[in-house]
Amino acid sequence: MEKQMRKEADAIVAASIKAVQPDEAVSRALQGKKFPGRVVLVAAGKAAWQMAKAAHDCLGDRIDAGVVITKYDHVMGLIANFDCREAGHPVPDENSFTGTQAALDLAQGLTEKDTVLFLLSGGGSALFEKPLVAGEVLQDVTGQLLACGADIVEINTIRKRLSAVKGGRFAQSCAPAQVFSIVLSDILGDPLDMIASGPAVPDTSTCAQARAIAEKYKLNLTEEVKELLGQETPKELHNVTTQITGSVRELCAAAAKVCREMGYEPVVLTDQLCCQAKEAGSFLASILKTHYGAGKPMAFLAGGETVVQLTGKGKGGRNQELALATAPLIAGMQGVCVFSVGSDGTDGPTDAAGGYADGETEAELRQNGLEVFGVLRDNDAYHALQKTGGLIFTGPTGTNVNDVAVALLKG
Amino acid sequence: MEKQMRKEADAIVAASIKAVQPDEAVSRALQGKKFPGRVVLVAAGKAAWQMAKAAHDCLGDRIDAGVVITKYDHVMGLIANFDCREAGHPVPDENSFTGTQAALDLAQGLTEKDTVLFLLSGGGSALFEKPLVAGEVLQDVTGQLLACGADIVEINTIRKRLSAVKGGRFAQSCAPAQVFSIVLSDILGDPLDMIASGPAVPDTSTCAQARAIAEKYKLNLTEEVKELLGQETPKELHNVTTQITGSVRELCAAAAKVCREMGYEPVVLTDQLCCQAKEAGSFLASILKTHYGAGKPMAFLAGGETVVQLTGKGKGGRNQELALATAPLIAGMQGVCVFSVGSDGTDGPTDAAGGYADGETEAELRQNGLEVFGVLRDNDAYHALQKTGGLIFTGPTGTNVNDVAVALLKG
Repeated sequence: MEKQMRKEADAIVAASIKAVQPDEAVSRALQGKKFPGRVVLVAAGKAAWQMAKAAHDCLGDRIDAGVVITKYDHVMGLIANFDCREAGHPVPDENSFTGTQAALDLAQGLTEKDTVLFLLSGGGSALFEKPLVAGEVLQDVTGQLLACGADIVEINTIRKRLSAVKGGRFAQSCAPAQVFSIVLSDILGDPLDMIASGPAVPDTSTCAQARAIAEKYKLNLTEEVKELLGQETPKELHNVTTQITGSVRELCAAAAKVCREMGYEPVVLTDQLCCQAKEAGSFLASILKTHYGAGKPMAFLAGGETVVQLTGKGKGGRNQELALATAPLIAGMQGVCVFSVGSDGTDGPTDAAGGYADGETEAELRQNGLEVFGVLRDNDAYHALQKTGGLIFTGPTGTNVNDVAVALLKG
Repeated sequence: MEKQMRKEADAIVAASIKAVQPDEAVSRALQGKKFPGRVVLVAAGKAAWQMAKAAHDCLGDRIDAGVVITKYDHVMGLIANFDCREAGHPVPDENSFTGTQAALDLAQGLTEKDTVLFLLSGGGSALFEKPLVAGEVLQDVTGQLLACGADIVEINTIRKRLSAVKGGRFAQSCAPAQVFSIVLSDILGDPLDMIASGPAVPDTSTCAQARAIAEKYKLNLTEEVKELLGQETPKELHNVTTQITGSVRELCAAAAKVCREMGYEPVVLTDQLCCQAKEAGSFLASILKTHYGAGKPMAFLAGGETVVQLTGKGKGGRNQELALATAPLIAGMQGVCVFSVGSDGTDGPTDAAGGYADGETEAELRQNGLEVFGVLRDNDAYHALQKTGGLIFTGPTGTNVNDVAVALLKG
């Protein structure tokens, strides 16, 4: 292992993950923001507590009151006078519903000068929900849709209409107050209406589509449900400002920033990577090979979420496979490395956040009697990288905005 | 299909392939070159005739004489007073040896002001050879090496020492004359000593390595062979100038040039691509998705040679698979396309040179009852792209410098 390269890799990993922590992300989104009237806070999702805490640290007493709804065991303490609650995830429970009702109540009676500061993170779909029908009815409809093979878009088109908050309805119910929505995204490409089914996003699906789906699958629906499917969701929301933060895009941008500070010219290739992990590694290595020796320090970055093809029974993760796959291609090259990490600090079913390889990795593996293609066939990247010191550990990071892979080149 | 995008794709394909034709490549390499003394020409390889013809078109009577050695049926006519010969490929035969001897004779008796214009293309390894031992002896040694699992580097280390022209020895025998070597490359990354075993390239392997290989595999060698293994190949060649041309690098550069002329900012990601075809497509599509909507026309290029994973029995090729795999990822996007072609005009066992996909391709496939993942599982890209007008035809091109894939983005 080239110690200097590894040191730089670790520094880039640490700084990029820090930049997408919920608290950093919220602080960044609130920087320089002025709110004219009253401010109330509604936070929902797995990172709701951290986001609410950060908002309080930024705005202090400017926030009049708050409702925070997160997963069980995720409230880390009291935050001023905020009402912090825990509820069911991934399956919503009664606490989800009462917490959401408390949020709806808090956002009532405001004027158009007032602001609902709405902080949303992953898991919000279950934690932030108020069904318009009884739990059994909702379960029955969902069950029918799943049984007949409806896709996720079709299921959501129906379910949004059975909810008081999804499909833009939460923001609608806040009117005339302004909604300033900060979304901590963990979905590739940030499709806002998919994150927690978009409580503060105009809905693109229509009643006509909902009825067509009901007909297509010959759903057996109560009169109450039929009536609800006829009620349109908001198509425009003039009181909403949305700021996406902590996304994989910001993870890449943060990594690029550190690379630039270290003297590398960063090139963010993509923040929507979606191919096979080891093939992404080969692609990145082929980029390094072409630019090697040009005398210009460069960093090629690719964010997103790769997939692993399971052909063996070893231990590893997509980030470890991506890094390991580059080893034979960059073997013998100096001042070159490739590393990849999951921002949540957990790569596959391992305690490592990702993997690192450089020009010396393949020789080190060979000294240990290992050969990369065989290791990848066994999906055993963890044990191989353990031997070369190529595992990257961060511990749990408190955030989850997909992965970033970086290919560094001294010149 | 977006007609305008397809038109631009076809223009880029045509111009890039033209730029790596043997004749264009040789003309470019000879542009502005002055030779002080006599000039003799030696051309060997599958494109030897075209290269020699181009050199004659450029230099005319400045070339005193020439020996051209190409594959059977590859001499297309007389060229001035050149001695055009045909010989065995991929297995060298007696005509290879006598042709090579004629070339060696032609290059004798020159002064240091004179030049041997040495034109090398793929297949030169068999066509340009003069063994220092009898054919049976050479076959026996090669057979032993193959039987005991020696790798290509080990085999070449031994074989170079049994040849009068390989491992830099041809250039050595031309001294004191200058050797101006133009190499039409079809090997990724242009490792010069691998192309026809480098007749005009200093050899990096040593006698000590050759002896170690003989010992490692306990080769049964005659005294004559043992003696030859002790004779060193040239480690420096001061009379050689080498110009690599017609390589995949030039294919990429030519494609990039046309893209720029059309208003796209070209980014050559790599000219050494080596991953799975469809995964390379996914990677390129993810790059397009990230830069889509930024308002800047860009072209991302990747040259090299991808591989196809055979899981079905359909018809297709690596370039067609690469293009097709992008279809679901770029579906619905406008002013975007991905295409990939093999520079020889033949992609896999098909009559197409490659494939093309844009934002409309997936919908067109669906109208034909086709689904991309299923098609790729069957390795049946040809028939799918046939339905969308996404096959690219060039006919045989007369050159072979790997593939280039281009991802275009209007903004």
